[in-house]
Order: sequence, then structure tokens, then C-alpha cells
Amino acid sequence: MWADIEPIGRHRGTGGYRRFAWTGEDATLREWFSGEAADRGLDVIEDRAGNQWAWWGDPDADGPGVVLGSHLDSVPDGGAFDGPLGVVSAFAALDELRAKGFTPARPVAIANFGDEEGARFGVACAGSRIITGAMTADRARALTDASGISMAEAFSRAGRDPARVGADPEAVGRIGTFVELHVEQGRGLVDIGRAVAVGSSIWPHGRWRFDLPGEANHAGTTRLEDRADPMLAFAAVVLGARAAAVRHGVVATCGKVNVEPNGVNAIPSHVTGWLDARGADTEQVRAVVAEVADLVGEHGGTVAEESWTGSTAFAPALADRLAALLDDAPVLATGAGHDAGILAAAGVPTAMLFVRNPTGISHSPAEHAEEADCEAGVAALAQVLEELAR
Amino acid sequence: MWADIEPIGRHRGTGGYRRFAWTGEDATLREWFSGEAADRGLDVIEDRAGNQWAWWGDPDADGPGVVLGSHLDSVPDGGAFDGPLGVVSAFAALDELRAKGFTPARPVAIANFGDEEGARFGVACAGSRIITGAMTADRARALTDASGISMAEAFSRAGRDPARVGADPEAVGRIGTFVELHVEQGRGLVDIGRAVAVGSSIWPHGRWRFDLPGEANHAGTTRLEDRADPMLAFAAVVLGARAAAVRHGVVATCGKVNVEPNGVNAIPSHVTGWLDARGADTEQVRAVVAEVADLVGEHGGTVAEESWTGSTAFAPALADRLAALLDDAPVLATGAGHDAGILAAAGVPTAMLFVRNPTGISHSPAEHAEEADCEAGVAALAQVLEELAR
Repeated sequence: MWADIEPIGRHRGTGGYRRFAWTGEDATLREWFSGEAADRGLDVIEDRAGNQWAWWGDPDADGPGVVLGSHLDSVPDGGAFDGPLGVVSAFAALDELRAKGFTPARPVAIANFGDEEGARFGVACAGSRIITGAMTADRARALTDASGISMAEAFSRAGRDPARVGADPEAVGRIGTFVELHVEQGRGLVDIGRAVAVGSSIWPHGRWRFDLPGEANHAGTTRLEDRADPMLAFAAVVLGARAAAVRHGVVATCGKVNVEPNGVNAIPSHVTGWLDARGADTEQVRAVVAEVADLVGEHGGTVAEESWTGSTAFAPALADRLAALLDDAPVLATGAGHDAGILAAAGVPTAMLFVRNPTGISHSPAEHAEEADCEAGVAALAQVLEELAR
Repeated sequence: MWADIEPIGRHRGTGGYRRFAWTGEDATLREWFSGEAADRGLDVIEDRAGNQWAWWGDPDADGPGVVLGSHLDSVPDGGAFDGPLGVVSAFAALDELRAKGFTPARPVAIANFGDEEGARFGVACAGSRIITGAMTADRARALTDASGISMAEAFSRAGRDPARVGADPEAVGRIGTFVELHVEQGRGLVDIGRAVAVGSSIWPHGRWRFDLPGEANHAGTTRLEDRADPMLAFAAVVLGARAAAVRHGVVATCGKVNVEPNGVNAIPSHVTGWLDARGADTEQVRAVVAEVADLVGEHGGTVAEESWTGSTAFAPALADRLAALLDDAPVLATGAGHDAGILAAAGVPTAMLFVRNPTGISHSPAEHAEEADCEAGVAALAQVLEELAR
């Protein structure tokens, strides 16, 4: 399975993945998912956000069921594991249980959530946010990518009906328990020498866009004192965000910027930057965002919240049960958002498993997990599925 | 004439022009130029850099001649006047002289220099640099645009032979005197209440690219102390360049940046920034560049000089003669580079005329010149042509 998806959306130059929602690469990954499901006799349905569900058994007659899964899309130049490891491991865990003749007592599904990274339309976990109602259909449809294409238009181009987009309580209601396996995005497991952990919670996290207006002008003939140069304001905000994050003990990142017109000899007319901020403590994260907003305001700019997810604890009893099942696996919190967090916030009993990442690097072509650790992840996921579906 | 080219390459959203070398818009503008020349019975030839020359008379038999002209390309979201005003005014000045029955004593040409802004391949005045040998053919051919297309490939796609690109002493030798009319890119004429000025010199100016390496990683899960975030380095360089420019009394601008991968939740793996620096004094400009290079080096980055043009004085006796001719027109230096500067540096007798810009704004959709001032520019250019070609 891994070899089949390995080349899809991989950039020749960087070696990183560019798998964005509702693109050709995304369609190829969806076909791969449907094919794997068909090979196993699973029934694939797509919900109102375009998330794929491959069911073994009938959740409407005998559900709710146990759902394993993750996502197949990537950040720009992302790694091979973030997302796909959870989907591939789910199929492999199912195969392992079937090979030993296991028959589940309730329906089982593997899910592929769409647009988890939000790399194209700016909102992470768009697929799970839409079906749980955490993002309204109108807001989702109106989101635009860097070329000005709306999500509604992207749905249409991909042969889906944008009018159908919206909360899908039926799809959510079919999930009795959701378990997402994911490559770890830090060094927690490396430090303690374990291959697999159980997730406890997701830090509160969000994204903010800040718009800094300027006045386009010639870089050679405009006196410094006559300039309104928003690149200077952007630089001040980048450094200010970092300083505020250090003060408040959280993480803050400006990883994306758009400059208009982005010409060497033109003072920019407009700079748009993005802030990603997260931390264990909601108040501290909010304090950083407030300081950044003040700084943006001092430069005549505006800040818009693109997404916000409060601290999300996974079902604590379930986490304890799975940790005990997996040889007293460590229980870790994470700074990364996941569809599992959106579902947990919507009241779905949810758990996560993390697989060791030797460097902790993620969202990069250097992201990695050793084969033995991936196999340990599959074995753990199979144990969890057997426990929950028997 | 103005109405014919007004819509070409104009962006609907910004109202600015996007007329880049060897694109479809550029081809349309070249066709327009050839058409205007044909309507007047002028012979159009293209030199080894693809610059267009519309000759009245035979410069090889009776030359060298008097050449008027400028360029038709633009910066990203540039204004309507920077470049086209000089070409349109040249045709209009010719028409004005012909209407009064003037016959030149030597050949006269109107020139359209290609790729003056360097918006696509990063080197300003590429057309005049190539034919004068200020840029070698090998370097020109190897320049690439943002999509990785080389100038050689762009020439091929536009139906030109890249092997032919190179210094063209024959084309340069046909120019007895070159006069470029241009919209002013500052407020010099506004301040003194005049419509037209004569140019004295061009400030030394250059462009530098700086590359800042980092380590791609997840914005939510990587501790601040574990990060190598090149966006922070970029911000420090932007602010440092401005501070150095203030200290040294020159102008410095970071108007362009490319971020890899440019994702909201990804610490960048690499940031490339550009510095444009100019000033009346070469030593001061060089001092700013040296300080910026030190700062880039402190952040583990490297600096590459993309272009450098020393201070260029136009022929002083010619400037005085034209100023006297034009009712004691003011004589002004400029911070903007022009093909006229490249030709002057190559030893061609060269002059410039500037037309008043009510706001001083240039390289922006807000760039403007009043119709009466444009007409005064045409009248001045006709006077100059009559003086030089009789």
C-alpha cells in the first residue's frame, strides 16, 4: 500500500509532498482509498464534506461502529507520514485481524478525512469541522485559495455538489468510537524510548491572518520619510510574535506571507501574514494573539481569526483503557490539531495513538518513522480495534 | 495610440499593469509597436536582445542617427506611464515634426527596449545591458523566472533564436544620440512648478538576493528553542536594511520575498529576500549593502549581487544644450535606473526628459501624469528631435 501512494504529489525538487484538497493529487489519493476498500469488500460512502468512509458492516442497521482513520492531504512540501500513516495503518490493522479470523461484533470503518491541513483554503480540519457543524456550510463554501477559487467551486470542479456541503449528523452519528493513529510531531517518544503512545489532549490552537496596508511606490525614487512600506510592519510583527511567545511560554509562528506586488524595485502595496499560535494554556495563547493584534493595529493593519480550537481532551477513561491494553503505553498531549480533536470536541468518544518520530521533525520532507515503529503502530491499532469491536 | 495599449496587460483586480518580458502581453505590445511604425513607413528591425528599432532613413548608409524611445514592459502591478509614455511620446513627436514638413538631415529612430524592469528575470535593463555587453549572453540566457523558465527558453517560446542573443555593436553603433522621455518618479517638478525637466544623472543602484536557510518543521509541536526559523532572520534583515539606509542617507527596500513552503502551520525551510539599494553616493550605498550582508551572514545566509550600476552622468554639454532649448528647463538627477543610463555608461551620447508626476508615485496603479504635461513632453521631445536631427 505504502509504495502505491509514495509517488503521489511528491515534488521532484524538494522531495516534499504537495497534496492539496480537491486537486488532481487529491483525486488520485481518493481513488487509491476506494480501491483499497473495494479490495477488502468494504462499502465506501462520502459524507456531506466529501470525507470518505469505508464500512465493514452496516452502521445504520447495527451501529454505531468503531472508526479508524486519518487524512491523506499534506501541507506544502510536507512529509510522507503525517496523515497517510494513519490511513495505511488502519487498512493493515484490519488485514491483521481478518487474517486471524476475527469477526467484529459491531460495524467497523476506515475514514479518510478531507482537507485536514487546510493548506489550500486556510482552515485546518475542514472535513471534520463541516460535518460536525464546527464550521458553517456558508463559511466553508466561501473560503478561497491563493488563486481566488472558492471551496464551492473546487467542489464543483471535482464533480461534487457544493449545495450538499454542510453538517452531517448522520455521518457523525455512525461513529461509536474514533481512533486516529498519527506519526508523533515531537520528541516525546524518543526521549522515553517507546514506539507508541496514547494521546491525552490537543493544545488550544488557532490561525490568524493579518493584513498590513501600504502605498505602492518606486523603490529608487521615493524618500524613506515619504514611504508607507508594509514589509517593515510585517517584519516588526514577525519579531514581536516570537518575543510574545517566549514571554508567555507558548509557540507562535509566521510561516506564510503574501506580498503585493512582490517586485524587487516596488515598495509593496500590501502584505498579508499569518500567525499560528498554540500552547498548553489557553490564556497564554490568547495573550500572545492580543499582543500581536495590538502590534498590527499600531501599523494600521487588521487581524482576522481564521480558526480557533480550544483545549480538547480525548475521552480520559478510553485513553487509560488503551494505555493499559498497550503495555502501559505513555500518554502524551500534542500541540498539533487533528480531526480527532474536532470529533472529540463534538462529543464523539475519541482516542489517538502516536508512533515514534526519531527526529521529531514534521511538516517537512525530513519527517520520518522507522519501519519497525510503524509495524508496532499497526499491531497496537489492531489490538485497539479488537478490544473495541469485539 | 494611448487608447490602443491602455488595456494590454492590465489586471482587473488591482488596475495595475503586468507586462512582463516575452509573455503574451509583451508580444501584443511588440505588435502594436510594429504596427505604429508601419503606419508611418518606418523600418522595424530587432537587435540581438530583441529590442525593437523603427528607423526613418538608413542608419547604416547615413548614420549614426537620433534615437528616441523607452520601454513597454512593467513591474508587477505597475502604472500606465513608466515606459509607454516615452514610446508613445516619441511617435507623437515624430508626427508633430512631419506635420510641419520637417525633413531630418540624418536618420531618426524610435526604440522599444525589451525587459527594462527586469520583473521576470531579475535583471533590470536586460535589453540594453545585452546589446552593450554590460551583461554577457551566457548570463542572460541562464537567468530564470519564478517558474524556472530560462531567458533562453523564453526567447525560444517567443520564436526568437537564443543562440543569437549577445552584444550587438552594430545596433549600438547606429545610435548617434539617444533621448529617453520618462514620467518623473518623484516630486522634483511638482516642487518647482514645471512640466518638463532634463536629466543630469542616475544614482548608483543595484539589486541583491539573500538566501536564508532554515529547517522545515511543524509550527505546533516544535519547541521555540529547537527551531531554525528563517522568517525571523528575514524580519531582522528587513529592519536592519532600513536602519542602515537611514544612517547612510540612501534608500533601501525589501519589496520581494519567497518563502518555502509558505504554509501557515509550517516553519519555513528557506526564505529568499531581495534588497534594492540606491543613493547619490556610491560609498554610502555600498556601506548599506555591506551591513546587510553581515546581518545575513550572522543568520547563516548568503548574499548574491544580481545587478549593479555605478553613478551614470548623461552627456553634460548635451543636457545643458537641451535645458537651454526648453526655456531653461530644470536639470534633475534620478534614483531610477533606465536604458538611457546603460547606453550612457557604454559611451553613447544620451539625454533624458522627465514629465511631471503630480504625486511622485510610480511603480503603482496610482502613477499619473496630467494630459497637458504629457503634451508638453511631446512638444519638448519634438523640439529636441528637431534640434538634434536638423
